[in-house]
Amino acid sequence: MRKIHVIGIGAGDPEQLTLQAVRALRSTDVFFLLDKGEVKSDLTGLRRDMLDAHIPEGTYRLVEARDPERDRTAGGAAYSPAVGDWRSARADIYERLITEELGEDESGAFLVWGDPSLYDSTLGILEEILERGAVAFEYDVVPGISSVSALVARHRTGLNRVARPVQITTGRRLSEGFPEGVDDVVVMLDAQQTFRQYADQDIDIYWGAYIGTPDEILASGPIAEAAPRIERLRGEARERKGWIMDTYLLRRHPAAE
Amino acid sequence: MRKIHVIGIGAGDPEQLTLQAVRALRSTDVFFLLDKGEVKSDLTGLRRDMLDAHIPEGTYRLVEARDPERDRTAGGAAYSPAVGDWRSARADIYERLITEELGEDESGAFLVWGDPSLYDSTLGILEEILERGAVAFEYDVVPGISSVSALVARHRTGLNRVARPVQITTGRRLSEGFPEGVDDVVVMLDAQQTFRQYADQDIDIYWGAYIGTPDEILASGPIAEAAPRIERLRGEARERKGWIMDTYLLRRHPAAE
Ligand SMILES: C[S@@+](CC[C@H](N)C(=O)[O-])C[C@H]1O[C@@H](n2cnc3c(N)ncnc32)[C@H](O)[C@@H]1O
Ligand SMILES: C[S@@+](CC[C@H](N)C(=O)[O-])C[C@H]1O[C@@H](n2cnc3c(N)ncnc32)[C@H](O)[C@@H]1O
Repeated sequence: MRKIHVIGIGAGDPEQLTLQAVRALRSTDVFFLLDKGEVKSDLTGLRRDMLDAHIPEGTYRLVEARDPERDRTAGGAAYSPAVGDWRSARADIYERLITEELGEDESGAFLVWGDPSLYDSTLGILEEILERGAVAFEYDVVPGISSVSALVARHRTGLNRVARPVQITTGRRLSEGFPEGVDDVVVMLDAQQTFRQYADQDIDIYWGAYIGTPDEILASGPIAEAAPRIERLRGEARERKGWIMDTYLLRRHPAAE
Repeated sequence: MRKIHVIGIGAGDPEQLTLQAVRALRSTDVFFLLDKGEVKSDLTGLRRDMLDAHIPEGTYRLVEARDPERDRTAGGAAYSPAVGDWRSARADIYERLITEELGEDESGAFLVWGDPSLYDSTLGILEEILERGAVAFEYDVVPGISSVSALVARHRTGLNRVARPVQITTGRRLSEGFPEGVDDVVVMLDAQQTFRQYADQDIDIYWGAYIGTPDEILASGPIAEAAPRIERLRGEARERKGWIMDTYLLRRHPAAE
């Protein structure tokens, strides 16, 4: 039976691999590296460096493929209506890779950014392929340090306040209003700097870009003061590198009880 | 200047240590191990095994102390009104440990279960000690694999559904009602099996106890069918071991849009 590891590799710092992930890397015959195009090729480079660092050369094969382009024409929203199509297109590619590149008794691996459980489609895609029924395989998941954990560790703060909940959401959702029933909100996939919408409220923001990488930028403070600062830092960084990944925690005061 | 590492050690599987955590362990002179009493001494044992596995004996000191008892008389609620007192009592102990057991140029470490950012008081306690001003130190945080990440990895599912939010909350909060604005909810610190309250709803539950340890138990399914099964498994396990740690994800259908 073909075997597949879905391995969380952390969100930028190669030291945030777990021992379990290293072990899974070492037991893998074929790595599938999906490239999202030139803007993200730094990220593919980081994956390749991880393999070099932890596995003897010549003991594995690397299969690279181009990820289908997602339709981002809908105003840059993180998930356009095309997301379903995009996922099926991706499933086609993954299915072909597994069928053609992985021998019956071999192990393959997908290296997933951060933790595979957060805003990542790999698990859904593998389930879709299994449901199609054309190729059979077993798979397991190796959890990774998410950008969320990395963000708050760098800011040395918790996700939740004592006995209170925390919500993890997207920039698009945040643009529809501050989530109900929570005062601690982590925002991912925000191309629009939606935090600016809340700059008149009594909120602290803990922001980070390229967390864990040499380009890491952190900023925090009361949102009224920090928002313009973050906007400037973010704009400059995006200009310089051509792309940006950022995440932030909003902490509202006083906690509405 | 004294230096302190707050190191997330994962939620039960010693292989879920990160390379960064191992490096931090190796650069530590003094480990502070707080024992929560006999029921949790398995967990202290796991910490000690980790040190044995990763650091040469004789290169570090181990300082053990007894954690103050938290007042759990308020019906077993995870956080009783005594939580503030308990935290200050804990700060007293930590402050004494840092002052008396850590030399001016040494590094100390607290080994935090799971990820230090989730329902853990270590960071708050260190801030309280710094504010008191009696002892100065620098500290950093090494993120860890939380029981939340470990839970969903074992169930091979995501935390959020595509483009949707997820909330992490406590059993006590869940007993007050299903959180608003989300259909995916992770519940921690639930001594009351509060999921039973929702057994008549169209919800899937993904449950795990002692995740990552040799005693790990997993169960999942539509809540109406799974709840009695989990109740039985949980009762038996708790009986057998004398204590239990469990976490679950509730996924409501259809996602209310
Ligand atoms: C498609 S999601 C994948 C998240 C990933 N599975 C994780 O666990 O972090 C991509 C989003 O994650 C966040 N992100 C990932 N890596 C990051 C990093 N190194 N620094 C800041 N944000 C990051 C950003 O919000 C980005 O829009
Ligand atoms: C005080 S909180 C600490 C959480 C920890 N910082 C983390 O990241 O997992 C303790 C709660 O975490 C959950 N938990 C911790 N370890 C667990 C494990 N191995 N299996 C299941 N649940 C666990 C349970 O819900 C427990 O009540």
